[in-house]
Amino acid sequence: MSLRAKLAALRELLDQDVLALEPTFFAHGFSAVAGDLDRVRPKVRALGLWTPHLKDGPAALSLVEHAHVSEILGRSPLGHYVANCQAPDAGNMELLLAAGSAEQRQRWFVPLAAGEIRSCFAMTEPDRPGSNPTWIDTRAEPTADGWTLTGRKWFASSADGAAFAIVMATTDPEAPPHRRASLFIVPTDSSGYRLVGNLATMGDAGDGWASHGEIELDSCRLPADALLGARGAGFRLAQRRLGPGRIHHAMRWIGIAERSFDLLCERAIAREIAPGAPLGAEPVVLGWIAEARARIDAARGLVLSAAVLVERDGDGGASKEARIAVALVKFHTVEAMELVVDRALQAHGALGMTDRTPLAWFYRHERAARIYDGADEVHRAAAGRMLLEARGLARR
Amino acid sequence: MSLRAKLAALRELLDQDVLALEPTFFAHGFSAVAGDLDRVRPKVRALGLWTPHLKDGPAALSLVEHAHVSEILGRSPLGHYVANCQAPDAGNMELLLAAGSAEQRQRWFVPLAAGEIRSCFAMTEPDRPGSNPTWIDTRAEPTADGWTLTGRKWFASSADGAAFAIVMATTDPEAPPHRRASLFIVPTDSSGYRLVGNLATMGDAGDGWASHGEIELDSCRLPADALLGARGAGFRLAQRRLGPGRIHHAMRWIGIAERSFDLLCERAIAREIAPGAPLGAEPVVLGWIAEARARIDAARGLVLSAAVLVERDGDGGASKEARIAVALVKFHTVEAMELVVDRALQAHGALGMTDRTPLAWFYRHERAARIYDGADEVHRAAAGRMLLEARGLARR
Amino acid sequence: MSLRAKLAALRELLDQDVLALEPTFFAHGFSAVAGDLDRVRPKVRALGLWTPHLKDGPAALSLVEHAHVSEILGRSPLGHYVANCQAPDAGNMELLLAAGSAEQRQRWFVPLAAGEIRSCFAMTEPDRPGSNPTWIDTRAEPTADGWTLTGRKWFASSADGAAFAIVMATTDPEAPPHRRASLFIVPTDSSGYRLVGNLATMGDAGDGWASHGEIELDSCRLPADALLGARGAGFRLAQRRLGPGRIHHAMRWIGIAERSFDLLCERAIAREIAPGAPLGAEPVVLGWIAEARARIDAARGLVLSAAVLVERDGDGGASKEARIAVALVKFHTVEAMELVVDRALQAHGALGMTDRTPLAWFYRHERAARIYDGADEVHRAAAGRMLLEARGLARR
Amino acid sequence: MSLRAKLAALRELLDQDVLALEPTFFAHGFSAVAGDLDRVRPKVRALGLWTPHLKDGPAALSLVEHAHVSEILGRSPLGHYVANCQAPDAGNMELLLAAGSAEQRQRWFVPLAAGEIRSCFAMTEPDRPGSNPTWIDTRAEPTADGWTLTGRKWFASSADGAAFAIVMATTDPEAPPHRRASLFIVPTDSSGYRLVGNLATMGDAGDGWASHGEIELDSCRLPADALLGARGAGFRLAQRRLGPGRIHHAMRWIGIAERSFDLLCERAIAREIAPGAPLGAEPVVLGWIAEARARIDAARGLVLSAAVLVERDGDGGASKEARIAVALVKFHTVEAMELVVDRALQAHGALGMTDRTPLAWFYRHERAARIYDGADEVHRAAAGRMLLEARGLARR
Repeated sequence: MSLRAKLAALRELLDQDVLALEPTFFAHGFSAVAGDLDRVRPKVRALGLWTPHLKDGPAALSLVEHAHVSEILGRSPLGHYVANCQAPDAGNMELLLAAGSAEQRQRWFVPLAAGEIRSCFAMTEPDRPGSNPTWIDTRAEPTADGWTLTGRKWFASSADGAAFAIVMATTDPEAPPHRRASLFIVPTDSSGYRLVGNLATMGDAGDGWASHGEIELDSCRLPADALLGARGAGFRLAQRRLGPGRIHHAMRWIGIAERSFDLLCERAIAREIAPGAPLGAEPVVLGWIAEARARIDAARGLVLSAAVLVERDGDGGASKEARIAVALVKFHTVEAMELVVDRALQAHGALGMTDRTPLAWFYRHERAARIYDGADEVHRAAAGRMLLEARGLARR
Repeated sequence: MSLRAKLAALRELLDQDVLALEPTFFAHGFSAVAGDLDRVRPKVRALGLWTPHLKDGPAALSLVEHAHVSEILGRSPLGHYVANCQAPDAGNMELLLAAGSAEQRQRWFVPLAAGEIRSCFAMTEPDRPGSNPTWIDTRAEPTADGWTLTGRKWFASSADGAAFAIVMATTDPEAPPHRRASLFIVPTDSSGYRLVGNLATMGDAGDGWASHGEIELDSCRLPADALLGARGAGFRLAQRRLGPGRIHHAMRWIGIAERSFDLLCERAIAREIAPGAPLGAEPVVLGWIAEARARIDAARGLVLSAAVLVERDGDGGASKEARIAVALVKFHTVEAMELVVDRALQAHGALGMTDRTPLAWFYRHERAARIYDGADEVHRAAAGRMLLEARGLARR
Repeated sequence: MSLRAKLAALRELLDQDVLALEPTFFAHGFSAVAGDLDRVRPKVRALGLWTPHLKDGPAALSLVEHAHVSEILGRSPLGHYVANCQAPDAGNMELLLAAGSAEQRQRWFVPLAAGEIRSCFAMTEPDRPGSNPTWIDTRAEPTADGWTLTGRKWFASSADGAAFAIVMATTDPEAPPHRRASLFIVPTDSSGYRLVGNLATMGDAGDGWASHGEIELDSCRLPADALLGARGAGFRLAQRRLGPGRIHHAMRWIGIAERSFDLLCERAIAREIAPGAPLGAEPVVLGWIAEARARIDAARGLVLSAAVLVERDGDGGASKEARIAVALVKFHTVEAMELVVDRALQAHGALGMTDRTPLAWFYRHERAARIYDGADEVHRAAAGRMLLEARGLARR
Repeated sequence: MSLRAKLAALRELLDQDVLALEPTFFAHGFSAVAGDLDRVRPKVRALGLWTPHLKDGPAALSLVEHAHVSEILGRSPLGHYVANCQAPDAGNMELLLAAGSAEQRQRWFVPLAAGEIRSCFAMTEPDRPGSNPTWIDTRAEPTADGWTLTGRKWFASSADGAAFAIVMATTDPEAPPHRRASLFIVPTDSSGYRLVGNLATMGDAGDGWASHGEIELDSCRLPADALLGARGAGFRLAQRRLGPGRIHHAMRWIGIAERSFDLLCERAIAREIAPGAPLGAEPVVLGWIAEARARIDAARGLVLSAAVLVERDGDGGASKEARIAVALVKFHTVEAMELVVDRALQAHGALGMTDRTPLAWFYRHERAARIYDGADEVHRAAAGRMLLEARGLARR
């Protein structure tokens, strides 16, 4: 089956099997739909689109091809889960492949890629800015036979129910800033590891995969082989994880924008504001629709171009050109998505505020898109600086 | 005590007794704080600021003076409740005073103004646009000794726990559009009246005063004296209710913006993005602060000017000048509020997404501000048209 | 030579021979540089990029290839002229090819394509909205042996020095609106044709090619073969001319944006705001640079995609898909261009207001981009309507 | 006559005598209208509104009262000139009053306030950022009997025809930054002083009062009493001059916005986009009108509030509260003005690009408003910093 055909089938599958679960998800949380979602997963696998982010996985897609898959999955908050390419597991799989030992890959990657377990990534700390990943308070002290970790993390997405966490901790406080931290694989049943709870964000603590955990590490003892990658490589590996992560998010945001665009158009056609007068006859609304279409298509082009660069220049976007492209995509796509979601919600009037469409969910939870994986302001300044450096501005 | 002194005391009271209740409210709903709020109410009464929206109430304030009170109360989602000037009760009190018979005022206004009961206003219908209040499906049929109401309403805010609803229903379908509907006082224990449930908005069905109800009227029988005001006066009375309501909302939005501005500044001062480097040293953030300050002060000026006009020209903003001013205030103030809330949330990073500040609540629930009491697009077009008519454009 | 190599050579040529003429052009008008420009033209011809908009011309480029050429030419207000693809001649050449008789092509197209004469297009009228091309006051009355034209036109760009004008006039006032007008080829030495003068726009009446003429047709007598295309086909042919014209403009705007981006970056690197502190170290300026880069790249993608569609579906963008794409490109690209020009000008401070850079010229004269070839508001509404019709909204 | 009556008379005078001169001014420059303007001046004097910026002048207005006068004058680019309160003379008068010796005031202030001579202010330098007034290359060396000035200035507005320039030059390069420069009164017939020419800005070098000069000081010898104010006080005095200057500009911008608003409304009413269909029936245009009205009124309120603070706290806005208010007004009012001018121009279509309305002039020349007297970005950051300092952020 061609990719085009697979994409059509995936879209069909999503429309049939996943969208109907959204109201239950919004009202009762992830657990209430987890079983149903698990029954959809084999169908995605059968389509050949399982773990589509893994180049050497069963789907064997290029990054650009994955972008098209991700856009379709992004149409629903539950989409990526059914293909087992949901954050943070997708990034963790990539990280384990890139930096894990053969044993680590066997023990953690294999069941993760099979969808048998879930995981989380614990980097951000309540008292330290997420935008500065060189400033990590959590400490990992070497012991005779391993490590002891102490600290507090939050916004460890999907920690609830995770089998393991990848934790970033300072191992070498006297090293240069980018060499101070290391990554550790921490089974969640380790002594000293505790999920304090799920953070209420936008009024909702969530549960299971759809949650953001606060984690306490209280002299958490780990064996020597808990170290993932080289000592001091934490920052580098986290960046390597985040680079493709940003582009994965952008692909998903295009999907959100497309779903919202569809809802906007459907509403404009179906809703009468006076007998016989559809909302879609209003010039202001027509302007929203045109603007939305232009922004989505323009943003998609930028995402796909960045994907080409990332693919050409290697994982993690090692080249400056690729890093610039990823930074631009990060903030530009969010802007387009926010605009379309906002206009679609507005066109729905009071209905837009309810959970009878996914718009209110997109509106409130994707507000985080301008914050996670680096605040947009940080990406703007960084991209600007790289663009000037490429033209000869001396680095500060 | 001067009004200035009262305002300072009110601010103090809010800071001491109400802000601390917000986390519980966000996590557990209105019922969890209702008792505490009821214990704050006597303190507001003692301050002489009880029902500050009622010109002839104990506070005896002008509309401009009320604006200052409302701004302080608006700093918390729970503020207006402690002064018994919360929507929709405030508007219902005004409506009963304006259009109610002596008996109706005695039976409903008196306990409402005393804070002994709550009420709701049921106009919007799921299948009809809120922006077109001349198109109401709910029917009120005259009977031998009264009326029978049939229809469905939603976004009847605070219906949960209300003692009565003021319901808009079509009584004269053949009359000119603005004469078709009438208002009815419907005790919530009437047979045929049913609160179907609270609508989940932004992921939260809420409870008690902090909820939006869906109501079914199934051959709900009412006595003849259930009619509020004249038959066919429903549209006119609703507009009369909404006019001051819009300016009340705008006053409250200024308070939300000021609270958010304080949080933005406090975060900018307290948060370090690198050791020794406060967020508030960043030019981008300084620009947000300056922009926020300018927008709030400019918007407040517009609100106060509109209040002067409304006061001068009578209740309901009968003059075109006052109606234009109210329409401008509606959309202009929302814009300022949204900008400040957004920047403050962004400055808080991940913390901004949590319910540990009120920013996430403001962000998600006040999104409705561009929708309720007339979508902003409707007010823009209406204000533009009135401005042109004032210069001679022929009415269509 | 590959197209890539040709493009590099064209860029070099522009940088060497054309940019240096800009200050003289800004200070003394087109005549002061016309001779120099004419000496550059053979070099472009030698490069094989002469009349690059003509598919069957010497350059033999696809529309997408032409877009790349046009982007480079667009870097200077004088760029398109040296390749003889400047408006309005480019569109007139296409129109003559599409609708002209063999004799008309021989007499007018051949010297025009050779760069020996210039032309203008006279459609817009002072008292009629440019956005409504079905409402044309200029009348063409049939006579025994031809036509008599009477009316007034303005914004006939480049009328000053033109050998002929293509004039749109109403021939059949009782026909359906889109069948009322016809096109005429009017030699500028015809009796009854008079160039009233060049319109001062943005303080500058301009001259020669760089001007906008006001034209009076006072019983201007024309032979029968002055009619271009079929009688009543004026509207259809004008639209056919404007479709590609809009995409040509958009390609040029990308060039303007790129030139402005270069100036922005150069200024950020070179300008110190305090000793040793370049402007480009300011986060706000870095943000402009990043934003500009993202917007340009996203807009270029949209333009190229539209070019593909127009090429696929035939001249004039006959398919609805192509027409939507062209409309989106029209307003989206202008927005990106305006943003970059504005930020670049701002970064130059007082210098930006002078004519020592082309930024002030771009700023004031390209303000017209949101107006000509259909106001952006018209394109937004039209695109929105076509998008909804494609989804089933009934046509009004 | 009450101020209200005077304002009405001034408005009438402007409408009658000044607006008609604009087309000539746009087409032929200031000299072409100077004589006519001089004939209007006595009428303003007769109205009692001559030099309205001078508290102790014949008008004897408070700053708030002056704001109302300035708003009316601002309706035309020629307005302030007829009341002799045009920049840069208005600021120079204030400076001479504040810092001049009795002799300096007699020699320069008296004829300036009488409107007999004009002047200019020469601070900005081509190679130094206008946003950093502590970095001045022009040097003033003490001599036996006075000073020798050497350097180059530009954007010395109205230098063409000025009787004297107030020049800022470094006298003490080793002093702390804010103490390095001093001000000098330089008669324009001094040897060594040369007006190199008028800068072409936005395509127009202008002439007379409506121009921006480039000045060369080549060992320009001055007597000892050329020093204005204390040695080293240049920065302080320039700031003192600029503070009220910023608020004067803001008042004028409100006038520009009001004029543009009138033109927008008139066009919306008068222009038909199809037979019988006025532009003003379009919801998009109605939205512009409403938005414009709200922005102007909100901005005016901010300007008037700032004027109250400046008046309360002394000239130059000595208090931090007043300085914050002035900075906010600077960027906020520009934004409102730009929006209204832009929408009004757009509503005029092609006509908006011509000089048949003042909109194109406002559009291109008032683009400088975001640059002069400190770029808006500088004011935003400064206001943000002062706002945080007022809340306890340690000064850097």
